[in-house]
This record gives sequence, structure tokens and C-alpha cells, in this order.
Amino acid sequence: MSKIVLYIAQSLDGFIAKPDGNLDWLTSTPPSEQGDYGYTELLNSIGTVIMGRKTYDIIIGFGEEWAYSGKETFVVTNDTNIEIKSPETHILTEDLINFVSGLKAKSEKDIWLMGGGQLIKFFIDNNLLDTMIISIIPKIIGNGIPLFPDHTLETEWKLENVQQFETGLVNLTYIKPR
Amino acid sequence: MSKIVLYIAQSLDGFIAKPDGNLDWLTSTPPSEQGDYGYTELLNSIGTVIMGRKTYDIIIGFGEEWAYSGKETFVVTNDTNIEIKSPETHILTEDLINFVSGLKAKSEKDIWLMGGGQLIKFFIDNNLLDTMIISIIPKIIGNGIPLFPDHTLETEWKLENVQQFETGLVNLTYIKPR
Repeated sequence: MSKIVLYIAQSLDGFIAKPDGNLDWLTSTPPSEQGDYGYTELLNSIGTVIMGRKTYDIIIGFGEEWAYSGKETFVVTNDTNIEIKSPETHILTEDLINFVSGLKAKSEKDIWLMGGGQLIKFFIDNNLLDTMIISIIPKIIGNGIPLFPDHTLETEWKLENVQQFETGLVNLTYIKPR
Repeated sequence: MSKIVLYIAQSLDGFIAKPDGNLDWLTSTPPSEQGDYGYTELLNSIGTVIMGRKTYDIIIGFGEEWAYSGKETFVVTNDTNIEIKSPETHILTEDLINFVSGLKAKSEKDIWLMGGGQLIKFFIDNNLLDTMIISIIPKIIGNGIPLFPDHTLETEWKLENVQQFETGLVNLTYIKPR
């Protein structure tokens, strides 16, 4: 049984992107001498990536080489005309709960839930999320897309790990009590 | 020169209270064997408490003995008819920036900014806040009063300290670079 892992950065005021999807406040984060904020470790632990349509568009919009080769990627969208511009990438249009439950059961490696907020809410509301690794960036950005949209299901989490970086980031890892 | 210190708890989704001010999700937090989450240390370091009108009403509404005896308390409000029900408590109706700047200059001990969100925004927007100690409670509560209201000034903070408790709380201390 694999786990679904959210690994995401948020501003101090709880946003994962500016209202237009802009991530300059995040990508300007300096590298840490203590490692890459858990990114390589996460990437080695997962075999699948799941993201929402807007998140996919933002990543493709960066215009950089696809970073998830060797992983299956699933983009959740109702738009069957979406143009897929990356390898090993599939669209998921329906029956997400069954699909994800099946994927968890059969996957050996974990599944990275990349975002965005609405998909995160869906996973939490349907009790599909197992682990959250939240990188807190030491900046207030004023407005944007919230990590946890309003009316995300009330849930308690267990703090599993805290990692502090000399650049001012903190990674907080929470797991869902079962 | 004293400092203005925000010491406050937030849910994982960034709220400091439920929409009606309810704090049951917070007050149900179990005590930690490692201490009282920095509360006594904070209380010993401050000589003055500043809070907004709604925060004052919530505290008075608890119906418990006034916890800040020996400190001067200032309640920020435009309502000059507010009924003060606690000792050493004054109302602040105008010219908050000048008052706070003067208080900082003349106080020996630090000043606790207790909240709520709108007053926190005012202090950040006017560059009055020096330190933030944020206790992150490992719960998503779904909706409420945000710690950082929308359009709080974009600012960078320096992570000063991280304290992890066995109960799942994390205290993050940030200071304003000067």
C-alpha cells in the first residue's frame, strides 16, 4: 500500500501562488547548504505525480525540461481537449476517488499530490491524503491561491517531523492518524 | 527600545479563531510536558498588552480571572462607549502609530500584540511589528478569522527559532530584518 504525499511550499500567509499563478516569491528562495529542501528525497520516494489542470499549465508555462521523467503523471481536469505536452502524462476526467484508491493499492512507490488548492481540498475531504510536507517560506505575499481553500474538511494531523533550514525555510511533515 | 511581539496560535489553514470567535479547537490543545508553549516566557518579557476590540470581548467572554494583572492593557477601538471590565486597561481610539512608537521608545519591557487579524495587519502594514511567535496547531478548521488578512503588506521575515512540542505544536519565531 503506497501513500499519497502532498509536498508543497506556502507563504507565511498560507498561499501557494499569487492570484495569477505567479511563483516568483518562491523561486527566488536561495538554495540551502543543508540540501534541496527534501526535494530529491521526495522524488526518489514517488512513482506517480498527480496535479490539477492549473498546476500543469503553470509547470508547462515555465518552458523548462520536464522534471518528472520516469514517473507517471496524471492531470485532473474536465477538459478532454487539454493539450498534453509532457511524457508519460495522462488526463484523469472522472471517478477520481476510485482511481486514486486503486492506484494506492497497486503502487509500490508513493504518489506525489502536487496541487493546487482545489485538488488538495478534494483529497483531504475524501480522506485520500496520508502525508503533508509543507515548506513554509518566510514571506508574507498579501494575496493568492490558498493552500487550504475555505471549508476544507476539519481534520487533525500528527506532526511527524520538523526540519529547519539556515535560509529561513521550515519543512513541517504531518501524517493522517488512521 | 522595546519590541512589539506577536504571540499567537493558528490552525494549519491559517485561522486564529472560528468565524464567530470560537476557540474550542485551540483550548482543547493538551498541555505539553516540555512547558507551556512559551507562554510564561512571553508573559515575563512583556510589560504591555495591545489587542483589538473583538479580541478583548472574546477574552472577557471567557469569564475567567484577568490574566494580565501587573501589565498595562490597551484596547484599540473606535467605540468610546466600550465597557472596560478588567484592571489597568485603557482604550486607544486614535493616532495609533504615534502612540505605539512612543510606547516602544519608552517601555523597558516588550509589548505583546495579541490580535486580532485586522490589528496585526495594521501593525505589519505600518512597519510596527518586530517579532512574530506563531504556534501552529496541527488541525485544519475549515474557516475562520485569518491570522494575516488579505492584502497584508508583502514583507520578508527572518526565521529566528523553531520549537517542536511532543503534542504536535510547533512554535515558529520570526523577526523583522531592520
